[in-house]
Amino acid sequence: MDMKTALIVGVGPGLSASLARLFARHGLQVALASRDPDKLQKLAEETAAASFACEATEPEEVAALFEVVVATQGVPDIVVYNASARARGPVTDLIPEEVARAISVSAYGGFLVAQQAARYMVARGSGAILLTGASASVKGYPNSAAFAMGKFALRGLAQSMARELSPKGVHVAHFVIDGAIRGAGRQDPADAPDSLLDPDAIAETYWQIANQPRNAWTWEVELRPWVEKF
Amino acid sequence: MDMKTALIVGVGPGLSASLARLFARHGLQVALASRDPDKLQKLAEETAAASFACEATEPEEVAALFEVVVATQGVPDIVVYNASARARGPVTDLIPEEVARAISVSAYGGFLVAQQAARYMVARGSGAILLTGASASVKGYPNSAAFAMGKFALRGLAQSMARELSPKGVHVAHFVIDGAIRGAGRQDPADAPDSLLDPDAIAETYWQIANQPRNAWTWEVELRPWVEKF
Amino acid sequence: MDMKTALIVGVGPGLSASLARLFARHGLQVALASRDPDKLQKLAEETAAASFACEATEPEEVAALFEVVVATQGVPDIVVYNASARARGPVTDLIPEEVARAISVSAYGGFLVAQQAARYMVARGSGAILLTGASASVKGYPNSAAFAMGKFALRGLAQSMARELSPKGVHVAHFVIDGAIRGAGRQDPADAPDSLLDPDAIAETYWQIANQPRNAWTWEVELRPWVEKF
Amino acid sequence: MDMKTALIVGVGPGLSASLARLFARHGLQVALASRDPDKLQKLAEETAAASFACEATEPEEVAALFEVVVATQGVPDIVVYNASARARGPVTDLIPEEVARAISVSAYGGFLVAQQAARYMVARGSGAILLTGASASVKGYPNSAAFAMGKFALRGLAQSMARELSPKGVHVAHFVIDGAIRGAGRQDPADAPDSLLDPDAIAETYWQIANQPRNAWTWEVELRPWVEKF
Repeated sequence: MDMKTALIVGVGPGLSASLARLFARHGLQVALASRDPDKLQKLAEETAAASFACEATEPEEVAALFEVVVATQGVPDIVVYNASARARGPVTDLIPEEVARAISVSAYGGFLVAQQAARYMVARGSGAILLTGASASVKGYPNSAAFAMGKFALRGLAQSMARELSPKGVHVAHFVIDGAIRGAGRQDPADAPDSLLDPDAIAETYWQIANQPRNAWTWEVELRPWVEKF
Repeated sequence: MDMKTALIVGVGPGLSASLARLFARHGLQVALASRDPDKLQKLAEETAAASFACEATEPEEVAALFEVVVATQGVPDIVVYNASARARGPVTDLIPEEVARAISVSAYGGFLVAQQAARYMVARGSGAILLTGASASVKGYPNSAAFAMGKFALRGLAQSMARELSPKGVHVAHFVIDGAIRGAGRQDPADAPDSLLDPDAIAETYWQIANQPRNAWTWEVELRPWVEKF
Repeated sequence: MDMKTALIVGVGPGLSASLARLFARHGLQVALASRDPDKLQKLAEETAAASFACEATEPEEVAALFEVVVATQGVPDIVVYNASARARGPVTDLIPEEVARAISVSAYGGFLVAQQAARYMVARGSGAILLTGASASVKGYPNSAAFAMGKFALRGLAQSMARELSPKGVHVAHFVIDGAIRGAGRQDPADAPDSLLDPDAIAETYWQIANQPRNAWTWEVELRPWVEKF
Repeated sequence: MDMKTALIVGVGPGLSASLARLFARHGLQVALASRDPDKLQKLAEETAAASFACEATEPEEVAALFEVVVATQGVPDIVVYNASARARGPVTDLIPEEVARAISVSAYGGFLVAQQAARYMVARGSGAILLTGASASVKGYPNSAAFAMGKFALRGLAQSMARELSPKGVHVAHFVIDGAIRGAGRQDPADAPDSLLDPDAIAETYWQIANQPRNAWTWEVELRPWVEKF
């Protein structure tokens, strides 16, 4: 593997930041995209990354993002989709517009980004598309219908694309992140060490999967803290 | 079980017609809803059903549908969601608007209908919500990303609602229909008897599941012809 | 469906008794087999069934059972395997011989019975083989390694046989019984009505599945009380 | 992670040899066990490993193996179970003794080895138990009932042990190897590069999983060539 560039869509302070740092440490040129690029400023500086404003649920914005990234950095070797939204509460109380938004951000945005990535990567015959799931991707929890819909849909996308694009040389992988992630002030309780996922540890697994040779590809892997019930 | 009324949303000439006839045969008052109620005319007459125009992806229309059905027929004992849409082809060729529509019809409409059903049924403490899936609900096929997204999402909804609403007395069940259904001119080839699903046979299983006592509820069952590969 | 005979292997006072009564009520001639046929006496009288001693983990005994049943009642239309054994406790404490026995009774006996059933049914081109699973068939619980091994193995058998035998006209179905069953003095607590599975309700679903036409066969269905967590 | 020793049970010329070489390259002291230790000679020399004769389906032999390994090399940091057996053919033709043997080698031997590993590792509070599955672990193929039973059972063991032992500091992981492995004279066809799994690539993923920090553990991962249908 000789990876040169990566694009991360849906960048916040958690997993995406760890991915950006890890990719930069391995010498990749990184591009970051988010609805609110002001928040990317510091991370972009730290990782020498280019940052872009992009509403991932808008086809034109996603297409434009890829055009500029490809023009300036080349076709990304790795594309990560890491955005999601949810609407919590009893299914009878959910507000339809919020449910529609949750599905759109969690799944439709993932489709738009993965589709653009696929167009460039299939033409080249290589690349890795990494989609971030959750425990809600494989189990529909009560009071979480909207999140289940979005995350199940993203997993369906990932599985369909893995079957379709693998023989074209493009590696599609889905990560079931089962547990809460450290950061944004959230740390392991003193009496429960390692009970939260370290985003650097998650990023390491993304990197390993992205670097698998094509004779031994993974399409799905889950990650959880040792004490997480499942 | 003393079932009196049923509402079927997404009515075409296939499974929904078989359901309507079966429900009517068992003495239920049936309501039919479709985007194009003109098509319901004949079936409505045959089953003495009321028919309604409803765009299932519009929250207000779905809410209005339930208001009139409840006002005229009472809270339905069974609500079936049977609409879906797809966009076929390589993921790189899919038109984003068509993908959005496929997700919306297959999954978001199912949410809107199931949510309304849940509101009335939870208040009463009984009822069955039956959601129609496909092989694409559990396996993401190549060149079928949009359908996989919609059907995975509907399954996530069904599983989340089953966990949430079962203890409130509402039975949510998901049907994995794995194979093509007879009808609309499509019949078993002469050399392959019973290679297509008979919609009357599917309807019978819906009816059996809807009538399970609450000590032995099924949330998911699959149905396929004996010769279908899986 | 014109079902005339059924064989139930692994008969105790619970589900198997309900199956025997239901089959008899539908006019089938029933055969019952158990390691300890003395216990079958009363049920055999009640259902006008023939009863047989059979250690289901012994190939010769299973072959002999089928020989006599076929000779006296004809090839069974339904064969149920309902025996299981477990060894509880932390995996580090399990006694190997008990684990071997648990796997043998839960899975290997199921293979022996299903194999004999398949031999007769494939030759005739029809029949239903019904295998009883548990929540442990699809989820490996802690402190339950032996039961998980046996029940996962039985499910693997059922799925393999369903794929192999369906096109030969033999219906193989697996039932995930998720919850405790009423009986043997165990009844619903007063404050938790319908919190235990009624074996008669389970039996009804077995009967429905066994009677599906071959254009709409189910290979797996789960059953649980409305209040059971899953 | 500071890993010092590893034990591999079920050693042939394929994956186990790659694991032994990789572990040795990372500085671990390796122990190899097989029914036929003569075959281990060359690999043992190459990797400076100790080799042992062990029939993995015999409780006493497995216990004795661990005693001597622990006495001479300390408690292993990694234990791999890599043995399996199968019986091919239509389910109606399978020879019961061969089916029993397939289940015993594929699953019961895995239990015996994993149980011994667990006893030592739980006492220490760390270690990784790695169990080798196959596509047959998650899908029951026709004409493969015996292999499905053994591999489903091993997966049930792995999942139960992962839930039970993770909170005790022991990492249990299951690998779904979906495809044929290079070696023993089997190489990629000239027109199908990378269509066989490279055992070195598989071994690398085992190593990565074994080295995950406990806040981000995987219990299951699958590996397949880019062109493998799934």
